[in-house]
Amino acid sequence: MVSFNNRLKKHITELSSYLCVGLDISPESLGSASSLSQCIDHANRVIDATIDLAAAFKPNLAFFEQWGSAGYKWLEDTMEYINNGTLTIADGKRGDIGNTAEKYAQSIFDHFGFDAATVNPYMGEDAIVPFIKRPDKGAFILCKTSNPSSDDFQNSQNGQKHIFELVARKSVELNSTENVGLVVGATIPEEIKTIRRIAPELPFLIPGVGAQGGDLEKSMQYGNENGLALISISRGIIFANDKTEKAIRSTAKDYKDKMMDLIHG
Amino acid sequence: MVSFNNRLKKHITELSSYLCVGLDISPESLGSASSLSQCIDHANRVIDATIDLAAAFKPNLAFFEQWGSAGYKWLEDTMEYINNGTLTIADGKRGDIGNTAEKYAQSIFDHFGFDAATVNPYMGEDAIVPFIKRPDKGAFILCKTSNPSSDDFQNSQNGQKHIFELVARKSVELNSTENVGLVVGATIPEEIKTIRRIAPELPFLIPGVGAQGGDLEKSMQYGNENGLALISISRGIIFANDKTEKAIRSTAKDYKDKMMDLIHG
Repeated sequence: MVSFNNRLKKHITELSSYLCVGLDISPESLGSASSLSQCIDHANRVIDATIDLAAAFKPNLAFFEQWGSAGYKWLEDTMEYINNGTLTIADGKRGDIGNTAEKYAQSIFDHFGFDAATVNPYMGEDAIVPFIKRPDKGAFILCKTSNPSSDDFQNSQNGQKHIFELVARKSVELNSTENVGLVVGATIPEEIKTIRRIAPELPFLIPGVGAQGGDLEKSMQYGNENGLALISISRGIIFANDKTEKAIRSTAKDYKDKMMDLIHG
Repeated sequence: MVSFNNRLKKHITELSSYLCVGLDISPESLGSASSLSQCIDHANRVIDATIDLAAAFKPNLAFFEQWGSAGYKWLEDTMEYINNGTLTIADGKRGDIGNTAEKYAQSIFDHFGFDAATVNPYMGEDAIVPFIKRPDKGAFILCKTSNPSSDDFQNSQNGQKHIFELVARKSVELNSTENVGLVVGATIPEEIKTIRRIAPELPFLIPGVGAQGGDLEKSMQYGNENGLALISISRGIIFANDKTEKAIRSTAKDYKDKMMDLIHG
């Protein structure tokens, strides 16, 4: 069985793309009174426009859950619509005690059929292990996130080490079946460098470029030294310009090409 | 508008109950090939058996999500079935950047109609604030959890303080509208004492009694000094003995009575 990290590496190489498209389909961004069916149409438009450009799609579960069971039906339909056309990462940031994390993993991997999930490490190893029991399915552990208050606890220091460094270290320990990655925000590039030193080889999922103002150039450079980094862009692509399929595709292609240029220096 | 913490206090007093019943309806616990409809029947049996004894119900979202959209439909029906007969806490441990946390809060409070939610603090204040914008809805922040690996990061030390103590301190800061509480595991009672010193007044939600082996007596004693504590029991009640309504009710009543005795003891 090919491990998730190797599947990801192979897919990035074959597609020549480091781009992950985040599906954060917010009705407000489509217009103030947008309905679920308008969101569904728009999501399918984004998928059509970018499926051959994106190394991965990352549906953000909150934007489905806001609609309750109809939203989860939409997520089921979205996974069918993607139809394994590229890798899929469930961005739900789950984290709970063992027997509950098992159920989240079952939902994400078995029910919905995702290839990977984002996982919150606050509850420790028990919260992570159920997501990495199957080598072909991966978990990206939240390490250093891109939001303004990410320092509140992640940058607390235990002796000489920040908590996010301890999370990176633990994630390296847990990577025995090559299916653990890290979420590392683009907003403080020096921290990408620090984390890469602790966790060479682990794939990074880097959000925060675009709407959040993260640095694309440094994220590509530091993230892809001794490992590889998917760059996740959501609002910057899915609501690009006039939000037509053409505008979305052309923005996604620009990002993809810029990333390849940065890699080839 | 009455704040969530005051609603909770009033409800506990009127009902003379500190018991929170966790709805972790696992098909495996009902028998190896249990179907969704058997889970639904059992959940309704638990609700019927305990609604007048429980200060709160705490549906564990993972056990609904394992069934996809059908599970979310079940959660909608469960909330209707409870029909505000007692307080409801969505145990989903969500935590994400601001605009995403807004959607989770919208799903939990507006779509499903819960009174409160459990929230993961790893991403800092941004991840918490969207859940406490409405004074009548509450958030229980994960502080010190009851699982074996909770020490991995929660007990890291920043100078003289553990991370869980920083979380408690931040939660006190955020409690300006009296709707912030803390999740504090029953498995290490001394830590309940420490957290209560930092956060007098904040309600505690204490899981870990029962299947996880936490200490009921000390949880009640330390949790209810200078504040109040809901004791959450899931498997110990919902799958009690022969799993009949009678067995469930009698076990729940025993727990409720024992808690009241400890308070008055």
